[in-house]
Amino acid sequence: MKIASVESFGNADVALVRVRTDDGAEGWGQVAPYHADITAHVLHRQIAPHALGRDAADIESLADRIPELEHKFPGSHLYRALAGFDTALWDLRGKVQGKSVSSLLGGDARRFRAYASSIRRDITPEHEAARLVGLRELHSFDAFKVRIGKECGHDEDEWPGRTQAVIETVRGALGDDAALLVDANSCYTPAKAIEVGRMLEQHGVTHFEEPCPYWELEWTREVTHALQLDVAGGEQDWDPRVWRTMVETRAVDVVQPDVCYVGGFTRALRVASLAEAEGLPCTPHSANHSLVLVFALHLQAAIGNPGPYVEFSIEPDADYPWQVGMYEPRPEVVEGKVALPEGPGWGVESHPSGSRAPSTGSAGSTEVDGFTSGVHMQPPETATTVRVEGGTTLTTDGPFAEIKEAIGGYCFSEANDLDAAVELASRIPAASMGGAARCARSWSGSGTPASRPGHFPKPSRAARASSVCASAA
Amino acid sequence: MKIASVESFGNADVALVRVRTDDGAEGWGQVAPYHADITAHVLHRQIAPHALGRDAADIESLADRIPELEHKFPGSHLYRALAGFDTALWDLRGKVQGKSVSSLLGGDARRFRAYASSIRRDITPEHEAARLVGLRELHSFDAFKVRIGKECGHDEDEWPGRTQAVIETVRGALGDDAALLVDANSCYTPAKAIEVGRMLEQHGVTHFEEPCPYWELEWTREVTHALQLDVAGGEQDWDPRVWRTMVETRAVDVVQPDVCYVGGFTRALRVASLAEAEGLPCTPHSANHSLVLVFALHLQAAIGNPGPYVEFSIEPDADYPWQVGMYEPRPEVVEGKVALPEGPGWGVESHPSGSRAPSTGSAGSTEVDGFTSGVHMQPPETATTVRVEGGTTLTTDGPFAEIKEAIGGYCFSEANDLDAAVELASRIPAASMGGAARCARSWSGSGTPASRPGHFPKPSRAARASSVCASAA
Repeated sequence: MKIASVESFGNADVALVRVRTDDGAEGWGQVAPYHADITAHVLHRQIAPHALGRDAADIESLADRIPELEHKFPGSHLYRALAGFDTALWDLRGKVQGKSVSSLLGGDARRFRAYASSIRRDITPEHEAARLVGLRELHSFDAFKVRIGKECGHDEDEWPGRTQAVIETVRGALGDDAALLVDANSCYTPAKAIEVGRMLEQHGVTHFEEPCPYWELEWTREVTHALQLDVAGGEQDWDPRVWRTMVETRAVDVVQPDVCYVGGFTRALRVASLAEAEGLPCTPHSANHSLVLVFALHLQAAIGNPGPYVEFSIEPDADYPWQVGMYEPRPEVVEGKVALPEGPGWGVESHPSGSRAPSTGSAGSTEVDGFTSGVHMQPPETATTVRVEGGTTLTTDGPFAEIKEAIGGYCFSEANDLDAAVELASRIPAASMGGAARCARSWSGSGTPASRPGHFPKPSRAARASSVCASAA
Repeated sequence: MKIASVESFGNADVALVRVRTDDGAEGWGQVAPYHADITAHVLHRQIAPHALGRDAADIESLADRIPELEHKFPGSHLYRALAGFDTALWDLRGKVQGKSVSSLLGGDARRFRAYASSIRRDITPEHEAARLVGLRELHSFDAFKVRIGKECGHDEDEWPGRTQAVIETVRGALGDDAALLVDANSCYTPAKAIEVGRMLEQHGVTHFEEPCPYWELEWTREVTHALQLDVAGGEQDWDPRVWRTMVETRAVDVVQPDVCYVGGFTRALRVASLAEAEGLPCTPHSANHSLVLVFALHLQAAIGNPGPYVEFSIEPDADYPWQVGMYEPRPEVVEGKVALPEGPGWGVESHPSGSRAPSTGSAGSTEVDGFTSGVHMQPPETATTVRVEGGTTLTTDGPFAEIKEAIGGYCFSEANDLDAAVELASRIPAASMGGAARCARSWSGSGTPASRPGHFPKPSRAARASSVCASAA
């Protein structure tokens, strides 16, 4: 079962990876999102050459050996690429054995409590509370995470008073029974984090994520030891040295490996195991609806120390267009719980031309003993089928560029105005009106643009966002 | 003095970086070699956007802030790119103030003892000893470093018995007065490293570099504490957390930051300073003749705890074609010492079209408020001027491709035969004969191909190597 090809299908936001063997087996994985085209270069130039011709069953030894062979490049880009390769091998292993990835490891959990994870700071406390209440009505969430402080903020708040206000307002709106989590994204010095932490504890917050710059482990440890609530962290970390120190010195109460950032499923399992040996739970980071969410579900099912819930992003697809159409079925939250996709491997079907953010560059190709590694560019923008978010597929006779212009023109362009969007939607061909309406709702669901301070997409973002609505089938 | 443009000039092996300000100042730096085209993507996509429009004088705050803004990508690729930007800013600062970089920091050393650094393991002990003796005759080196074990070798030797033999043979050939250093490149477990270390001590070796996998800091510490000789390490490390642990726990006796791997001159200075506070010397890693060697010389001149010598690669340009023609003057060893280039900034003139390894890909361009960041591709292969290694410039009427074919045909092609090379050299246009002869000597200087086990360049390498002899002026 020799690895015969390593392919990536993606763009600047995200890339799927397909590994095929010489006997016809195949598996799908995904590199980490963001600058994924650069990661694809790394995959094809620094991962695949060491993998082609090797036995696809040797996942663990490949996960060890490849970073050794690229030991001059210790860091995130390498592990983001390795994750794409490693997760494809796990899918392949599952498919060959006719088992889901978690079942391969003896996991039998099938539904997981999900926490509704807000990614936004550019949102007023009232608006945040309103949408969390709305989502609870729709999906019966009983756990919620909001953002506090400012990302890498050096003790600054996103705007003065927001942190205290968002905690008070959200707690007031959700009541005392809701589990409330927060994420400070590396904002605070230890003294400030402890001060904020005491306030959080007074409001029954139970999970304080990344209180300090994550690279200041000693700071984080100081906060962890000073507070009663759980301090969590580790999402960006890949270095086993750092994980060991983090766990052994109990710098956090909860480890949060991201399957795509840590270098894949194999290495995420190791982090969970390391934490389990020290009695710490593992709540993986899965802050978007790309395959990382599916990987996180399998991880939770497979390990002995899963945290109490799985992270489930509540941000609209309009803000993360690239996560749309990559695979199906997409996990959904029903009665506060999210189900593990069923079936062999990851249990999902990947759609390599699904995500339609603009393509950039090519990573070229590599050939080793007749085996190949290379990038598949996005198809040209002449597709005549449109898939809108949520899975509805619509066909139109117009070329993609026209549809893009029509759909993109109303909800993400410089107008930034719901009325203008509705007017523009009327100009969209009848066949794709459903998509247009859905986009409008998605946007509306996050409030009108005017109520989102600081959230006026730049043209480049608008151009990207417009593609959320239309993806080649 | 706002940063108005960030440009890179390079290829898959190495890339120069030019930063220009809105008032016309400019500086040149360099990203780390190897997969430098990928690093250029990172530079233009993940470094430059945070830098354009900022004050070029704020080097230290940019070196702090940019990794924060890219904190989802902690690792080598990011710091390799940052190094290109940071070193360009230091050159710019020096040029604006009319001082060399080391003088900006109060350094006044001008000549440094160099150690002759062998990079090769595919060389017999006899051949290695012979070339070290030859180099001593030519340049009066009194310190030499050879490679032992196998890179990331899991206790294996490059071939059975080579390590012991190369130490005995080289020591025998050089006599007892020569300083002898070794590099194990992450080969050994602690027990084996200590066993090898005792043998090294018996032969008067004083510097044992990277005895264990460098990412196993505890292993390295165990070896450091067990042996009398100096254990050195750190070349691949960029993470300040790791440097702190390495220094504070005295995992090594000598720190070896690489200016290009660690994220630039600013961050290399910090590592040196951290080590100085703990009483450890700093001997920077500079294993090739790209600008990293110049950066290392300035570092040694600027810091308070320089090690006793500077690393000076003895490998022929034929094996590192991309390091030829990038800048001048190239540092040379005279009487065992290498001089700091004189003049403002780094004291060298960069030649953006000098290094002629094949170009791959484009990182596209970025624009922020009218300021730009982008890649300059190599000029097409129609140059009519040829620069041969060593600095001689020859002009010919033929297009580059013909010259390349002629020069590349004899010394690096599948023939791999010195006689055939000389025969082929006769076919080269008279005007470029000097270059041909020089290439032949360079190859010959490392012994005939037949005496270099395992060192038969593949066609792709041959094609690259051929470009050493010809570079567009």
